[in-house]
Amino acid sequence: MKLLEDRIRKEGKVIGTDIVKVDSFLNHQMDPELLDQMAEEFARLFKDAGITRVLTIEASGIAIAVLTALHLHVPAVFAKKSVSSNIGDDYYTARVHSFTHHTDHDVILSKNYLSKEDTVLLIDDFLATGEAIDGLTALCKEAGAKVGGVGICVEKAFQEGGRQLREKGYHVESLASIASIQDGVIRFTEE
Amino acid sequence: MKLLEDRIRKEGKVIGTDIVKVDSFLNHQMDPELLDQMAEEFARLFKDAGITRVLTIEASGIAIAVLTALHLHVPAVFAKKSVSSNIGDDYYTARVHSFTHHTDHDVILSKNYLSKEDTVLLIDDFLATGEAIDGLTALCKEAGAKVGGVGICVEKAFQEGGRQLREKGYHVESLASIASIQDGVIRFTEE
Repeated sequence: MKLLEDRIRKEGKVIGTDIVKVDSFLNHQMDPELLDQMAEEFARLFKDAGITRVLTIEASGIAIAVLTALHLHVPAVFAKKSVSSNIGDDYYTARVHSFTHHTDHDVILSKNYLSKEDTVLLIDDFLATGEAIDGLTALCKEAGAKVGGVGICVEKAFQEGGRQLREKGYHVESLASIASIQDGVIRFTEE
Repeated sequence: MKLLEDRIRKEGKVIGTDIVKVDSFLNHQMDPELLDQMAEEFARLFKDAGITRVLTIEASGIAIAVLTALHLHVPAVFAKKSVSSNIGDDYYTARVHSFTHHTDHDVILSKNYLSKEDTVLLIDDFLATGEAIDGLTALCKEAGAKVGGVGICVEKAFQEGGRQLREKGYHVESLASIASIQDGVIRFTEE
């Protein structure tokens, strides 16, 4: 999506060879008009996938997920970071490993809001090693729900998460796909 | 806002005399059409306040904040729960006390996204004892920004947060205001 790529080129802050910070418009401050256009594009890309719910994980995915759900006319739901390891039988749970922070944490989702009747669009702001999306697919599997697609704002295509998801057969769409970062220059994957 | 009150009456789960869970449409699963209409109402209520930024706190406030910002044509920004007590000079910080969990935690906000030029609309899903909004007003004070208004989805008017904020002179608007919960029945404040 050229609009997003241009914005990343203009405002993304490159750190080293694998980090681009986009917190001026995507995941700390948020440009609502840009996010709404990105959401409209997700809705277009997945319009024939029979999506019944949009699922994301707190906190950075929530804004784009609710806007996408608005365009698809379905509910959105976000998995919550669990504060307790003993949350009872009312929740699905999944373990999410963070390669960045070298930690594990659990995410939870009420059983009321995902079921085997659902075809789910997973949404997140970034895809790198894929741990967050793996957590969301695990929640869907536990619920018996079908994953109808994976919508990513910014994919780091030089890391393995996207390739692994596509090899597993998931329909993954990234609005911006970064091929490499070298000497402070961001190169996007050719469309 | 009658639409929201009706939804709370229909789907809110009362626990005891002071808790109403609205996680089927507001802060776990989200009904995007309802949230968009609530956001439109916030934009109408604060249209003459000169708002330059919408500020909320992760995670439950993000969806309604970004939709409100979309209607007001300004950026939204969310304060993040801090994972580290040593985050350097690039962030404003505030301590938030949780009466529910009897804990304190810090929230942070990049200094890039709030300044003394700003007139800020604070948004949150619930207002009870007011600790989250107090944290956001502290961030605004640190930035030298003006608080132009406080927009709350559901106020528990039988707790002191809203009264205290109004006594301090803040323009607080709640889309639903619960006067009491007794025997499982929710009574709203007369408009």
